[in-house]
Amino acid sequence: MKFKVKDVDLSTGGTLIVILNSEDAKKLDLHGGDRVILKKGKKEIITSVDITHSNKNIKNGQVGLFEEVLDTLKVKKGEIISVNPTHTPASIEIIKNKLDGKILSEKEINILVKDMVENDLTEMELAYFVSACYNEKLNHEEIVAFTKAVLKNGKQINFGRGIMADKHCLGGVPNNRTTMLITPIIASAGLKIAKSSSRSITSAAGTADTMEALAKIAFPLKKIKEIVKRANGCIIWGGAMELAGADNKLIKVRHPLRLDPEGLMLASILAKKASVGSTHVLIDIPIGKTAKIHSKKVAKNLKKKFIELGKTLGMKVQVMITDGSQPIGNGIGPNLEARDILYILKRDERAPKDLEKKSIMMANKLFRLTKTKASAKEILNSKVAYLKMREIIKLQGGKVSINPDNLELGKYTFDVKSTKSGKVSEMNNIKLTKVARIAGSPEDKKAGIYLYKHVKDKVKRGEKLYTIYSSSRDKLEYAKLASKNAIVIK
Amino acid sequence: MKFKVKDVDLSTGGTLIVILNSEDAKKLDLHGGDRVILKKGKKEIITSVDITHSNKNIKNGQVGLFEEVLDTLKVKKGEIISVNPTHTPASIEIIKNKLDGKILSEKEINILVKDMVENDLTEMELAYFVSACYNEKLNHEEIVAFTKAVLKNGKQINFGRGIMADKHCLGGVPNNRTTMLITPIIASAGLKIAKSSSRSITSAAGTADTMEALAKIAFPLKKIKEIVKRANGCIIWGGAMELAGADNKLIKVRHPLRLDPEGLMLASILAKKASVGSTHVLIDIPIGKTAKIHSKKVAKNLKKKFIELGKTLGMKVQVMITDGSQPIGNGIGPNLEARDILYILKRDERAPKDLEKKSIMMANKLFRLTKTKASAKEILNSKVAYLKMREIIKLQGGKVSINPDNLELGKYTFDVKSTKSGKVSEMNNIKLTKVARIAGSPEDKKAGIYLYKHVKDKVKRGEKLYTIYSSSRDKLEYAKLASKNAIVIK
Repeated sequence: MKFKVKDVDLSTGGTLIVILNSEDAKKLDLHGGDRVILKKGKKEIITSVDITHSNKNIKNGQVGLFEEVLDTLKVKKGEIISVNPTHTPASIEIIKNKLDGKILSEKEINILVKDMVENDLTEMELAYFVSACYNEKLNHEEIVAFTKAVLKNGKQINFGRGIMADKHCLGGVPNNRTTMLITPIIASAGLKIAKSSSRSITSAAGTADTMEALAKIAFPLKKIKEIVKRANGCIIWGGAMELAGADNKLIKVRHPLRLDPEGLMLASILAKKASVGSTHVLIDIPIGKTAKIHSKKVAKNLKKKFIELGKTLGMKVQVMITDGSQPIGNGIGPNLEARDILYILKRDERAPKDLEKKSIMMANKLFRLTKTKASAKEILNSKVAYLKMREIIKLQGGKVSINPDNLELGKYTFDVKSTKSGKVSEMNNIKLTKVARIAGSPEDKKAGIYLYKHVKDKVKRGEKLYTIYSSSRDKLEYAKLASKNAIVIK
Repeated sequence: MKFKVKDVDLSTGGTLIVILNSEDAKKLDLHGGDRVILKKGKKEIITSVDITHSNKNIKNGQVGLFEEVLDTLKVKKGEIISVNPTHTPASIEIIKNKLDGKILSEKEINILVKDMVENDLTEMELAYFVSACYNEKLNHEEIVAFTKAVLKNGKQINFGRGIMADKHCLGGVPNNRTTMLITPIIASAGLKIAKSSSRSITSAAGTADTMEALAKIAFPLKKIKEIVKRANGCIIWGGAMELAGADNKLIKVRHPLRLDPEGLMLASILAKKASVGSTHVLIDIPIGKTAKIHSKKVAKNLKKKFIELGKTLGMKVQVMITDGSQPIGNGIGPNLEARDILYILKRDERAPKDLEKKSIMMANKLFRLTKTKASAKEILNSKVAYLKMREIIKLQGGKVSINPDNLELGKYTFDVKSTKSGKVSEMNNIKLTKVARIAGSPEDKKAGIYLYKHVKDKVKRGEKLYTIYSSSRDKLEYAKLASKNAIVIK
């Protein structure tokens, strides 16, 4: 059937959707979520159908297109396109099979991941898939197949032969910016480490956001190879390179119920490592009431599975279970976190000792894992790591001068003070993150929190617990409201 | 925060949604699917958030509202409303618990059903709920609680004391319009039967659509009571009365994967029966390759559960497992099905014997279940049932003259003929339904199929298998294309 294009002036952020009114939908026997094939000249695309119940918005003979569809099909409003029913993607049956507890074959998983990457599945269908993987856990073979499929359907970088070190943290702990110390330490020892990091989704800053306070983070693959060849290391944003992009599609549908099925998580993490050719990977699983993983039991089970999966993929994986009960480092927010890093690298006395200690420990673990004779502490103390970081920052288009005190902070500030004397008994990662986000992190690089206290520290009544920074007076006010009970004194 | 309203000129058909651009969403730390409270003067509503990634469509400081939200909040484009984050409904945690395999309490199920009915849950969240019920089957107590909650959160009709007969068919078999024969037969014997039926969702016609060929089907509760008081029976559309409306919310999310979790189905069916005070219910489970239920094992298990649930609800439930391998009756589509019914009631020789026989059998079962001394065959033969149907049709605002030959059929017709001689070995319910729907059923009451053959009938090469009727030349052409292999001759 022929339809006249209406631009509905909206975007979905991915999924390709067309809107028909219910009368036209009935003429084609289409239901919400059914697939149609759109044709304009020789160009064809498959989208799913949304049905609107009044024909006031989408008139008979009209079809409403979202931005993504207009762009992909290269049509404008008022043009005529043909819309006809087509088969549902094979992935639907595959998702149904998983819901029914069947074990998926490598081929089926590959079809599914391909459809995910190509935006051929609706959010609701992806939600059913997430739910299926949550209830009918993926077995080892399925996880391996999923990892390979994610890898195959995304881009990869080949840095050549030899050891490629890597690390990953499961997250949930504010700051904890070990990557930005481990990378220069490891690279200083002559090992290669091409660290692809993520931006924040629900945190106050991802490593990519913090690195962006100092340098550029998005590069073409060729340029990344060049940087690593020269400096042995880089800290870049994985999202920009479409490395292992399949799991990005699941972020939105996982959000409402905060589901993160184990198998998908394992596959997505190790696929990202494999996409940059990592051979030796250290994984940090922080546990804590307000971290991502709450129990030691879950952490230990994950540890086992990470190691198994790594083995199958030909990757040496070591897993450490760490304390995730409070932020690690003092700053929360891009510039504040970057400042902590520079303090440590420059051996400044204002350096947060907890972050320094954890990073040294992790770097040494990676040295042992790769059988490298080197001491992280020495590399730090000799400022070799600082020089290496300066080299990486320069190669990544950052400023040559990286004085921590030059990092700008929000001009509106508020000191949160203790209402009683005692000891810090609890720090709520989730609440502290919320305060920093409302203050403007990570978009506003100058926004965030600076902590003066950690768990077990003594506090006097009226003493500062932390300062909130924001570039906006309004946001600071909202952040103040959210700051209640983020730190508990007993 | 204050926002200026933009009318996005779309409707969702239920769920309340507002659209913010990603910059504004970040200011409030909102993610897609999060809940916000909208305020305009004293009026407040809670909606979920959709985020658009360009600020071309929804500008900074603007919020896009769907039709449902504009109507509910009573605002127009250009007006200023406040939008602020609020808690997610308790239902989210309840759905998560079900996904985790926990058994839900009566109170939790009630909260969930209330949120469903009030459009407080997004389609994605409902999909997670359907998925949870599919994987972690509801137990008997949960099904009972769900039935009661659906009942409590919908309207009910009280017809007073005494026996209320009722029947239900699980569906998937074209025509099979037994309700329209059983109701007048039962009512003729002095028993009350307030039959609330559904419109078609994926079939060529629901009982409500077929009854609509003869009379009105939507009435206020008061009028329904009056009709049943006078005629002992009625055949009305349940959807118009919001009887047990909760499960309507799930139709759209069940569609993509065609999921129909057992517990939800049991609860939804018996809640509808309970909402009209039914005391004796006969349930028909047709099984067949292209019917809704494919295996005897599944049917038997359902039978057991229907009886158990009925017992707990104080309802006598009898279940029959029948042959669902082919259409029952000759017409498929509202007018064609209504004509079959009138042929039978008027004892016309063109009456389809299979539908007559099944309806007599079922009516007699209901007589035995309610300990009523009566013979369905005699009631039919004496034309008492015909007069009763005429009375009901008249009370429901239909025409007094109900000559089957006056029911109009589509003026464009096509005869599907056999390409070889042999025996009908298979009739595909799904394909025949598709042909009738594409021809225009059920919206076009005159459209559909008339069958000349059933399974095991002998056929000569070139002999007519069925005629397709449509009011549109185009639709007839599309229907012809879909008619391939709907009937198999061997």
